[in-house]
Amino acid sequence: MKTRKYSIILGNLGNTCDRFLSSGYKEPLDKMKMIEQAASIEGVTGIELVGSWDIDDKTVGAMKSALKAHGLACSSIIPDLFAQKRWGRGALASADAKIRRQAVAEVNRMSDIAVELGGDLINLWPGQDGYDYPLAADYLQERKWLLDSLAECAVHARKRRVRIALEFKMKEPRTHSYLARTADTLLVANHLGMENVGVCIDTGHAFLAYENVGESVALLKLFGNKLFHMHFNDNFGSWDDDMIVGSIRLPEYFEMLYWMEKTGYKGWFSMDQYPYREDGYGAIRASVLFVQKMHALLDKVGLDSIEALLRRRDPVATADFIRTTLIA
Amino acid sequence: MKTRKYSIILGNLGNTCDRFLSSGYKEPLDKMKMIEQAASIEGVTGIELVGSWDIDDKTVGAMKSALKAHGLACSSIIPDLFAQKRWGRGALASADAKIRRQAVAEVNRMSDIAVELGGDLINLWPGQDGYDYPLAADYLQERKWLLDSLAECAVHARKRRVRIALEFKMKEPRTHSYLARTADTLLVANHLGMENVGVCIDTGHAFLAYENVGESVALLKLFGNKLFHMHFNDNFGSWDDDMIVGSIRLPEYFEMLYWMEKTGYKGWFSMDQYPYREDGYGAIRASVLFVQKMHALLDKVGLDSIEALLRRRDPVATADFIRTTLIA
Amino acid sequence: MKTRKYSIILGNLGNTCDRFLSSGYKEPLDKMKMIEQAASIEGVTGIELVGSWDIDDKTVGAMKSALKAHGLACSSIIPDLFAQKRWGRGALASADAKIRRQAVAEVNRMSDIAVELGGDLINLWPGQDGYDYPLAADYLQERKWLLDSLAECAVHARKRRVRIALEFKMKEPRTHSYLARTADTLLVANHLGMENVGVCIDTGHAFLAYENVGESVALLKLFGNKLFHMHFNDNFGSWDDDMIVGSIRLPEYFEMLYWMEKTGYKGWFSMDQYPYREDGYGAIRASVLFVQKMHALLDKVGLDSIEALLRRRDPVATADFIRTTLIA
Amino acid sequence: MKTRKYSIILGNLGNTCDRFLSSGYKEPLDKMKMIEQAASIEGVTGIELVGSWDIDDKTVGAMKSALKAHGLACSSIIPDLFAQKRWGRGALASADAKIRRQAVAEVNRMSDIAVELGGDLINLWPGQDGYDYPLAADYLQERKWLLDSLAECAVHARKRRVRIALEFKMKEPRTHSYLARTADTLLVANHLGMENVGVCIDTGHAFLAYENVGESVALLKLFGNKLFHMHFNDNFGSWDDDMIVGSIRLPEYFEMLYWMEKTGYKGWFSMDQYPYREDGYGAIRASVLFVQKMHALLDKVGLDSIEALLRRRDPVATADFIRTTLIA
Repeated sequence: MKTRKYSIILGNLGNTCDRFLSSGYKEPLDKMKMIEQAASIEGVTGIELVGSWDIDDKTVGAMKSALKAHGLACSSIIPDLFAQKRWGRGALASADAKIRRQAVAEVNRMSDIAVELGGDLINLWPGQDGYDYPLAADYLQERKWLLDSLAECAVHARKRRVRIALEFKMKEPRTHSYLARTADTLLVANHLGMENVGVCIDTGHAFLAYENVGESVALLKLFGNKLFHMHFNDNFGSWDDDMIVGSIRLPEYFEMLYWMEKTGYKGWFSMDQYPYREDGYGAIRASVLFVQKMHALLDKVGLDSIEALLRRRDPVATADFIRTTLIA
Repeated sequence: MKTRKYSIILGNLGNTCDRFLSSGYKEPLDKMKMIEQAASIEGVTGIELVGSWDIDDKTVGAMKSALKAHGLACSSIIPDLFAQKRWGRGALASADAKIRRQAVAEVNRMSDIAVELGGDLINLWPGQDGYDYPLAADYLQERKWLLDSLAECAVHARKRRVRIALEFKMKEPRTHSYLARTADTLLVANHLGMENVGVCIDTGHAFLAYENVGESVALLKLFGNKLFHMHFNDNFGSWDDDMIVGSIRLPEYFEMLYWMEKTGYKGWFSMDQYPYREDGYGAIRASVLFVQKMHALLDKVGLDSIEALLRRRDPVATADFIRTTLIA
Repeated sequence: MKTRKYSIILGNLGNTCDRFLSSGYKEPLDKMKMIEQAASIEGVTGIELVGSWDIDDKTVGAMKSALKAHGLACSSIIPDLFAQKRWGRGALASADAKIRRQAVAEVNRMSDIAVELGGDLINLWPGQDGYDYPLAADYLQERKWLLDSLAECAVHARKRRVRIALEFKMKEPRTHSYLARTADTLLVANHLGMENVGVCIDTGHAFLAYENVGESVALLKLFGNKLFHMHFNDNFGSWDDDMIVGSIRLPEYFEMLYWMEKTGYKGWFSMDQYPYREDGYGAIRASVLFVQKMHALLDKVGLDSIEALLRRRDPVATADFIRTTLIA
Repeated sequence: MKTRKYSIILGNLGNTCDRFLSSGYKEPLDKMKMIEQAASIEGVTGIELVGSWDIDDKTVGAMKSALKAHGLACSSIIPDLFAQKRWGRGALASADAKIRRQAVAEVNRMSDIAVELGGDLINLWPGQDGYDYPLAADYLQERKWLLDSLAECAVHARKRRVRIALEFKMKEPRTHSYLARTADTLLVANHLGMENVGVCIDTGHAFLAYENVGESVALLKLFGNKLFHMHFNDNFGSWDDDMIVGSIRLPEYFEMLYWMEKTGYKGWFSMDQYPYREDGYGAIRASVLFVQKMHALLDKVGLDSIEALLRRRDPVATADFIRTTLIA
């Protein structure tokens, strides 16, 4: 079996809330306990840290020690552009220039911290940059602000040899996000024209937008080789349910892993879920094991056989493959 | 213009949070200030109170005085079956008998408080009663528990001459709720077979389930005359965005108001929104004014004319009506 | 392995068209050839016939002989209430009394033919009974007509000892159907109050309505034991794509088969697809083999083990079960 | 009121079918009668013609005369890449090189015919270019074929001074199309890098993909000034229902017309519907009148006032605007 890099988002192991139960469904878990749990999941060698929630200037030293103690890499930092009141009406694309400067500074500080932790990736999800109602935003102006802010972040990151993966999501917390789908995020990345700016596909965000992730991976290859990072989870197709991988779908996961392999993806396979009511450790571990099982199947079948199947373009042959090779 | 009863959910005027920003997008507002605001909206004569958030044993006296001072009725109480950790895996349908008893007690206490406040309606939304994953719940058993719990609530309410409106929602906070759509909620209400149990349609919940609310109102008439209560908001059709009424849709609102009138609905027209980033007062007031404007148009056109239009069953005639009568 | 009855809809083996290519994507196939193909699929012992397309007064004799020759039962007849211009604005609920009478006659004639073919089931899909636009239908009146028409069909069928399974579908060909979801169809069935009227779940129709089919089966058990028939196919969750079973989903199929077993379902497991561009025989056969494989897994695991899993109500345990038992 | 160019797709006036009723819901209408009807709609000065259905080598002369006689321009030709069996598994991106050549030839012939009719626009909708199932297509290879074919079409069109508007649609007739959304179609257009290649937004296709059309228009401006053509219709947000404009939504139409004006759109405002059961003439005319009414309102309010509203970024102010300015 090939060596692949598995990772999780640290906070997924802790408490999670929603709009009805703001104190969360579970009890808060000690950060060091969460790191220990992460390290104990088979094959996991990296963790993603969320700004504010997991990491800031004061805690970077302790985090560095903890990562080292557990042999974990910092697979990415996700700057907090969504969990503070000041970002509520937008961060990188805010109509308030002061807020935009703060947002850029936040991202840049996280690039610095990433380097300090030995990392080289920022996963940038500008969740509050978007709008909620028709006739209540100036899309052209706000998108220009977004491009300007991203350019500033990218220039700073490049100096630090940090790459930025832009994570899209069609909606939530806004009803419409500016980085919404694979293709529009690729447009932004290509417009910036910098080698260190690419795209992160969160599988659930893509499903929500009716994307077939295998095809999204191919699209990123075709128009710029821009797949920089991957977040894994599952959902019912109409909301970012952030469920355990493989709870609903099967062939789509196998297919997307094929396309990552085929297009030379060398990045992390990172889990991103919201186990509201479940045991966090168990839920994340189950996803890691599912993806690893799919990888093992992929290696067993081999890229050439899969390519031969794809080129038959015959859903009956595909159904036979699923039934005889993917299911028990 | 006929006299109709307009109402709002008190908490909509205050701070609102989501899973990313648990402290909320705005600052908390003083409860008495919120009541004052509610009373100042043109035509609003009732407010709905949410358990835990707005009302409990300790505050009932002060609330009663405040309502009286502002000439407001208690249009309903919405028992808190969703905003406490103990309800996280279900309340009325919890697998834990102790939790079910607590949930029933909570509802019954709210029936008592409703009476104390001069109200006669409980709006029951069992938001945590459902499940998230396939293969992780015993639907038959849990639905039976739900029926038993609801029966207990209904018997107690009947003693207090209180009616219960069951509010459905297809999903959120669970990926699947037991009271999900108009028809399945009606099945539950009819199975209980008690005169004081009916249904509340939240327009956004219905849109989310691809229901045409006008038809849902007709369905409730046909199979039991069970429309007890109405919550108004708007959305994009695939999530409970809880937006200002009329932000997206137009003819559907006019149609549903016709059907309420036609089927003899005498209840409240109550607003239920989540103005995350907007001024709460302005957002709720805008919805009230929109519904009132639709009501004025309805009265102007007249039920007979609308019925005549419906019976033409001709979308071209309908389009002409929309263009010449509903829009400017 | 238990004995279960597998069936297919005959026409699925033939040519299929859509609104852009009305002549169909494939060449028409000889009816007798299709019957031969159906009989050759492992374990298939019944076929469903569609009125107009497959069966009418003139062809009933030849069909009877053909079925006998191939040892096939008539698992159901699906009366044509959708493929003739006269039904275009409604059939059983048409505003034209003459059309309603014709529609009832059509169904009754199919009940007679079913008996003649040795069958005892009518699968009734009133696809044209619904509406397309808000403000262009009289829902109360049309639903009453639908109930009256269905009652007439049911009385006639009862005389012939034929059962009627009402098949719902949220939309298509109308944007809104009167029989739209499990629960509203159950309301209709229960309102009719006849033992020979129940419900057919088409898995794709249920997915389209965001139903979890396992739960829908439980609902039909709880409120009347009304699951009469099953149609199998898969889709992406937002349209009736009518794909090969198992092309997208896995655990949901396993779960629904469990609930059918658990609730004592004794009817047919029938395939209903639209292999627009695929070889019909191959596509239908692949679905049959998938369902049979799930059934074999179900028998191997056993109802008790599954029930124990469900009662854990733990998605992590469920994920482990899926990974270790359902996938390769 | 400014002069704007309104157009319709000719075939929308005729018979329309679906997969259940392949002969169509209405009777075929004489082509010359349809042209006469088109010309009689207030303000309509152009018609779009569909290859095979409306125009080919043999009929071009008669069509030219008819257009002239009625004072109509050929606003576009839509090459038939979807209504023939040979395109069933793809046209411009077919795995069969012979089919790809035929598809390119078909488009090029339509460019020639457009010129002959005095037109300068091809509206290219490659509806069969996509796939239906996961694990049954080679996305990279097929997208490359699509790019090559489009380049050939564009080069030929450029010689004839014809522009090509690429029309996207997320799905139908395939479950996944290669030109699916605004952004991915823009990626294709920009990759081709030719001045005569741009994008057509069909409003219903965009709604289906959860796009807010106003923002889509802004996106096309920002990344290449590529809005070449517009198709208007309405739907419920989850399928291409192809309904009369304004049957569901209101503010979104007003907003998108603002953005077209703001970004300097000079093209056609063309109607594209499927009035399955309605009178075609009445349905299309109703849409034209709706768009014209929105245009009149737009002119009355003025771009500056709308821009001032957008820059308030206040949904409450927007709701007031809708209520006091857009509705009766």
